[in-house]
Amino acid sequence: MQFEIERIIRTALEEDIGLGDMTTEVTVAPDSVVRAELVAKEDFILAGIGVAAKVFTVLDADVKFEKIFDDGKSVRKGEVIAWLKGPAAVLLSGERVALNLLQRMSGIATLTARYVEAVKGTAATIVDTRKTVPGLRALDKFAVRQGGGRNHRIGLFDGVLIKENHSAAAGSITAAIAGAKKKLPHTLKIEVETRSLEEVEEALEAGADIIMLDNMTLYDMRKGVDLIAGRALVEASGGVNLERVREIAETGVDIISVGELTHSVKAADISMLFVS
Amino acid sequence: MQFEIERIIRTALEEDIGLGDMTTEVTVAPDSVVRAELVAKEDFILAGIGVAAKVFTVLDADVKFEKIFDDGKSVRKGEVIAWLKGPAAVLLSGERVALNLLQRMSGIATLTARYVEAVKGTAATIVDTRKTVPGLRALDKFAVRQGGGRNHRIGLFDGVLIKENHSAAAGSITAAIAGAKKKLPHTLKIEVETRSLEEVEEALEAGADIIMLDNMTLYDMRKGVDLIAGRALVEASGGVNLERVREIAETGVDIISVGELTHSVKAADISMLFVS
Amino acid sequence: MQFEIERIIRTALEEDIGLGDMTTEVTVAPDSVVRAELVAKEDFILAGIGVAAKVFTVLDADVKFEKIFDDGKSVRKGEVIAWLKGPAAVLLSGERVALNLLQRMSGIATLTARYVEAVKGTAATIVDTRKTVPGLRALDKFAVRQGGGRNHRIGLFDGVLIKENHSAAAGSITAAIAGAKKKLPHTLKIEVETRSLEEVEEALEAGADIIMLDNMTLYDMRKGVDLIAGRALVEASGGVNLERVREIAETGVDIISVGELTHSVKAADISMLFVS
Amino acid sequence: MQFEIERIIRTALEEDIGLGDMTTEVTVAPDSVVRAELVAKEDFILAGIGVAAKVFTVLDADVKFEKIFDDGKSVRKGEVIAWLKGPAAVLLSGERVALNLLQRMSGIATLTARYVEAVKGTAATIVDTRKTVPGLRALDKFAVRQGGGRNHRIGLFDGVLIKENHSAAAGSITAAIAGAKKKLPHTLKIEVETRSLEEVEEALEAGADIIMLDNMTLYDMRKGVDLIAGRALVEASGGVNLERVREIAETGVDIISVGELTHSVKAADISMLFVS
Amino acid sequence: MQFEIERIIRTALEEDIGLGDMTTEVTVAPDSVVRAELVAKEDFILAGIGVAAKVFTVLDADVKFEKIFDDGKSVRKGEVIAWLKGPAAVLLSGERVALNLLQRMSGIATLTARYVEAVKGTAATIVDTRKTVPGLRALDKFAVRQGGGRNHRIGLFDGVLIKENHSAAAGSITAAIAGAKKKLPHTLKIEVETRSLEEVEEALEAGADIIMLDNMTLYDMRKGVDLIAGRALVEASGGVNLERVREIAETGVDIISVGELTHSVKAADISMLFVS
Amino acid sequence: MQFEIERIIRTALEEDIGLGDMTTEVTVAPDSVVRAELVAKEDFILAGIGVAAKVFTVLDADVKFEKIFDDGKSVRKGEVIAWLKGPAAVLLSGERVALNLLQRMSGIATLTARYVEAVKGTAATIVDTRKTVPGLRALDKFAVRQGGGRNHRIGLFDGVLIKENHSAAAGSITAAIAGAKKKLPHTLKIEVETRSLEEVEEALEAGADIIMLDNMTLYDMRKGVDLIAGRALVEASGGVNLERVREIAETGVDIISVGELTHSVKAADISMLFVS
Repeated sequence: MQFEIERIIRTALEEDIGLGDMTTEVTVAPDSVVRAELVAKEDFILAGIGVAAKVFTVLDADVKFEKIFDDGKSVRKGEVIAWLKGPAAVLLSGERVALNLLQRMSGIATLTARYVEAVKGTAATIVDTRKTVPGLRALDKFAVRQGGGRNHRIGLFDGVLIKENHSAAAGSITAAIAGAKKKLPHTLKIEVETRSLEEVEEALEAGADIIMLDNMTLYDMRKGVDLIAGRALVEASGGVNLERVREIAETGVDIISVGELTHSVKAADISMLFVS
Repeated sequence: MQFEIERIIRTALEEDIGLGDMTTEVTVAPDSVVRAELVAKEDFILAGIGVAAKVFTVLDADVKFEKIFDDGKSVRKGEVIAWLKGPAAVLLSGERVALNLLQRMSGIATLTARYVEAVKGTAATIVDTRKTVPGLRALDKFAVRQGGGRNHRIGLFDGVLIKENHSAAAGSITAAIAGAKKKLPHTLKIEVETRSLEEVEEALEAGADIIMLDNMTLYDMRKGVDLIAGRALVEASGGVNLERVREIAETGVDIISVGELTHSVKAADISMLFVS
Repeated sequence: MQFEIERIIRTALEEDIGLGDMTTEVTVAPDSVVRAELVAKEDFILAGIGVAAKVFTVLDADVKFEKIFDDGKSVRKGEVIAWLKGPAAVLLSGERVALNLLQRMSGIATLTARYVEAVKGTAATIVDTRKTVPGLRALDKFAVRQGGGRNHRIGLFDGVLIKENHSAAAGSITAAIAGAKKKLPHTLKIEVETRSLEEVEEALEAGADIIMLDNMTLYDMRKGVDLIAGRALVEASGGVNLERVREIAETGVDIISVGELTHSVKAADISMLFVS
Repeated sequence: MQFEIERIIRTALEEDIGLGDMTTEVTVAPDSVVRAELVAKEDFILAGIGVAAKVFTVLDADVKFEKIFDDGKSVRKGEVIAWLKGPAAVLLSGERVALNLLQRMSGIATLTARYVEAVKGTAATIVDTRKTVPGLRALDKFAVRQGGGRNHRIGLFDGVLIKENHSAAAGSITAAIAGAKKKLPHTLKIEVETRSLEEVEEALEAGADIIMLDNMTLYDMRKGVDLIAGRALVEASGGVNLERVREIAETGVDIISVGELTHSVKAADISMLFVS
Repeated sequence: MQFEIERIIRTALEEDIGLGDMTTEVTVAPDSVVRAELVAKEDFILAGIGVAAKVFTVLDADVKFEKIFDDGKSVRKGEVIAWLKGPAAVLLSGERVALNLLQRMSGIATLTARYVEAVKGTAATIVDTRKTVPGLRALDKFAVRQGGGRNHRIGLFDGVLIKENHSAAAGSITAAIAGAKKKLPHTLKIEVETRSLEEVEEALEAGADIIMLDNMTLYDMRKGVDLIAGRALVEASGGVNLERVREIAETGVDIISVGELTHSVKAADISMLFVS
Repeated sequence: MQFEIERIIRTALEEDIGLGDMTTEVTVAPDSVVRAELVAKEDFILAGIGVAAKVFTVLDADVKFEKIFDDGKSVRKGEVIAWLKGPAAVLLSGERVALNLLQRMSGIATLTARYVEAVKGTAATIVDTRKTVPGLRALDKFAVRQGGGRNHRIGLFDGVLIKENHSAAAGSITAAIAGAKKKLPHTLKIEVETRSLEEVEEALEAGADIIMLDNMTLYDMRKGVDLIAGRALVEASGGVNLERVREIAETGVDIISVGELTHSVKAADISMLFVS
């Protein structure tokens, strides 16, 4: 993942700094070295501390960055997350990009942790979706893991998910599964989206490895779980929110996928303070 | 901006599709042509319809995409935003990226419009910040404009904003402004962050073009506006939210910058439906 | 895969043509249009005809390329595979790159077809490995499919294969599988490399989805197949060649992975002839 | 060549590792450091040892890689080629790419050496062609040099080779040579492909610096060499194989170009073993 | 600016060295270390010494480069500008690129300094234009600053300059300024090109921040300055040369923009000498 | 060369336009179509008209660009070089980049033509050097050809030029030539820099294909030409200017290389005028 993180950071720095941080260039002496702290302005689960560190070291390999909390840890308002030391010009120029990444990632981890907490004690696992911010999927999915969630497939290339339109195009769920079984790498499980118990049954008989219950009622989900009876993984999807997630988990599904984790993120509030 | 949009779209498609949309490849006939619609699942202000179109035409130049609403328009739940026609495989492979972009951009425009509405009738203008998602700043800022807001500087390279740390590094606000006036392109206005009325006075005397009142009380903002008396633009910043923004606007400031517009976005709910 | 193919073709053309095809520039009139044929100089299975076409259309969108055989078809010595028409300069400058790609890909398909033929009538499927030429994996794996083989995982990112060193690092096969089950996307099957029947048993109990029998004797393979008894897919690997592959298939394994398919390729002999 | 090697290695690592080596991530502790050896599993001429080393140091600058043999040296089955030490995760993730490159390059060097050996004692030099794997030409040609061969031109941009079609387009061999002499950099020799002794004579009179005898009989080659009599370099090309190469060399030609060196490579058998 | 400088240097080195410095590879021992000096062959103002240093360190991080003069300093014919020490092969391969950059940048600084000298004692500031060499704008503009000039806007994205055609398209200067005031970031000054005193008046009333007097007579410039009377910055442009620049400055304009600074540069004469 | 030209144009447009042409965006209606002309403001030799056209078509494929003069033609002050038609916004945004390229290239062609004219009637050919603007070498060298000159090698990778330091490193001119003859592609001529007639003699005996007389007096050049007597090409280099070039040519040298052609270019004066 290191090349992808480097790409993201370089793109972000080029986007923000372009041909130069004009203000800093005319106000800050090049040799002025300072110390700064990243401080939590509210409670959250930390994610991205290594990415934030890398923003500064990409700008200047000699910046010192010492994290106090690891990714995945719970941070309280007022706590210092990390301290850093380096040229004032570098710290000022990198500040915004580092915070933009760290705040988004921590926001994702924090929301994920709330979902994970909500299903605690059930057998259900919270997973993400492909509803990530374009260009940041690697970081979005990393942040989900720090919040205690697991990842669904990364993209269209590393997983099979036969949706309604695919089944329709193939003729039937059965035909779609048969095609996938015959042509795709044997290393991938085959997941099928179903919208009714009849479809669940068809998918099961056709040999699906994972059956997604899409936008079903709690009643149907329970029925689906019973029907499948461990012969395939069961994933609930659609209309999941913090209020409903516990009920969904209690139907006995194995996996609950939640788009909100990455498509509607509230940035965690974090500041960088210069200290003397 | 066209090269930047192309870069964003290509990055997003490579991220999602990689070496191929496995499911589609084994279920959909290459020559199957279908028609689909983008449909609003809630009310929002549209932004990014041209970007969504381009996602599909980058994949296949022959896809037909006809928008029904323009960017900046208000869309009601249930309305069709655009229809498109092309190979089923292309529509399926591009769907997620197009929606991810369109939903985020429309989310930004919608939130911006609420802020703009909130200050209606005052002289204040709502502007964004640099708290955008890394790699998407061009689109984030475009979406703000569709919601009726204006843009602050794009990055560190095209605007001068002397913050507390810059003034401290330069010795004083006065010294920082003097340096900027002497060395930077004459085409840029000089903005200074102030934290007290004393600093406002100093900035004004030193010839600042824009004075930012940072995290001030409403009382101090009003005092600041009086003090400046039209000799510089006045920008309010820090702790702005939908509850407070009207009060802030009524202090008489010219500009209110709002980080939330782009750092904590709720995606607008939009679906792509295949139609027969 | 279209972006990846474009990347490969552009890299190849830049590598070969650089700042210009000197010889062609000084000998061929820019407006001279010619017709040429791609001709088989030996028997082989065709793969890459679309890639070859794209080499020319990347150079000049107006070149006409008409394939006579599709990928996956058997071509006899002397047969014309495709004909093309366009500026002589473009055909001459693109010839080598097009042939280099087409000859390698057809070589892979041809070798794959011989393996597939060798195991005909058994239940075994021939798959490739990651022993591909760096930078060309997408095309190498595409060519294997044209020869009737299937693909193993594309890379390290889209499949799990616990090798000896991974198990050792995790403490045991059991521990390695448990870790993978807990942390990785639920969409991936878990494959484990085993070197003895004891390891097969351990992998099976730990819940492996695919068990690789690595460098085992035919006797042990048969034992392994019996032991597994359909509870996991069985993959034979190591020391596979055309002489041995039938015997291996007859042990009852499901999958046979063959490095030679892509690491030791004999280019199919193909020429481009200008016709009047 | 360092930028090109870096490009090849990065492309290869991104292709194989993508967003992460899943198996290694969940089985290997990040701080586990190991020692490994690259071992020859057959006899061959080594090429690419520096490239293999760089694969690992690109992933992690702190990996230690100590080569025991230099490029161009003969290695015997069972001998250790190099040892390396670093994080187990890095060694496992880089192993396949390093071997894919090293095995191909050593395969090329080994085949080249056999051709060089076959013409030993004659005046002929073995050279490569442009029939290399797209994207790897720099390494393919480097490997030929390690096997004792020399390189023909790198691409179309750094050498002039007037083929039949160029002469036809220019009107005649004479006209083609005249054009090249007048317009191209004076630093390049002009090579002409000939198919008969008449063409040899024409090329010679027109002032060709190098005359290629294309697919001629041994008898005609000898005649050609006599005719040219040292007034131009003589290159034999077409249908060269290990059985025929000595006879060709004995006709007195200066240069023999061999496509097989790079278009039909058998990978040298090399393994990476972890040692305790 | 560091990423942009790296991009420029890498592009230049790839352009010049490509797959290798053939001459150096066959004549210079890899381990031969030498010392060299950059020597002025005429008088000039130095610019680009850090860029020249970076050319060598990009090739080999261990090259030692010690500058004797800083950018912006006056160098006399015969003086040593910098000395460097490193592998002979690296110094020879990097020499031309380093000199090409250093000579151009110093040429720009030297010409700029002559313009600055010519207006000494007046209030006028010499600035550059967008007439730079494509791809090198960052360096061209940096060099202008070393010669004592200031920069105009970097490009079309970071400044507003309403030219004749823009006003015509908008309907009038007044309409164009109104549009810019309403829609563009409040951080940018608005500059308008005027061709007559009537247009100056219109621009002034419409609230232009900077008024460009384009190709006006000295008489009209003086009139324009009087008319504007400090209410906007005044920029003279068009037909500026070293003979006329003093007269223009004496009209009282604030800014004089000079295309020649970057579009017609005479390279400063600098050599690299190997010393024993 | 098409990929390189595209790279140059894209880099230039991104550099100039970045995230958008602000002025044009707020003043020009997107659907306003206009007609414009490129007009010569002085006499010059045209070069780069196709490149200028491409700048506009890269921005918008529908712009119509009709050249009136071809590259290499002499254009008089006041003549229209080309006319173009397209969206006003596109023409305004592309104008500067197109002119920057066209003016530089035409400046190079014009200066080259003066050198070529100066040596008319002698046997000498004018060639360029590697003293080009970093990143634009392909265009610089193309422009030299339009002015009637020829190109020296493109870079370090496609030609051999043994300079003083190379000979010193190899031990002697003789040793350097021997190394080059043995190791480099047989397709390249070997050029050697000489500083005295003794060195000329040594180079000749060692078999140099081209002998450069570096910074020699006219007397020594004549001696050198006599000594070489057609057995190698003779190139004069160093201190060449328009005043001296005829005398140099009359010494009988074959080639005169001129750094000034590309390192000290005066841009040709060209304007773009909108016509109604």
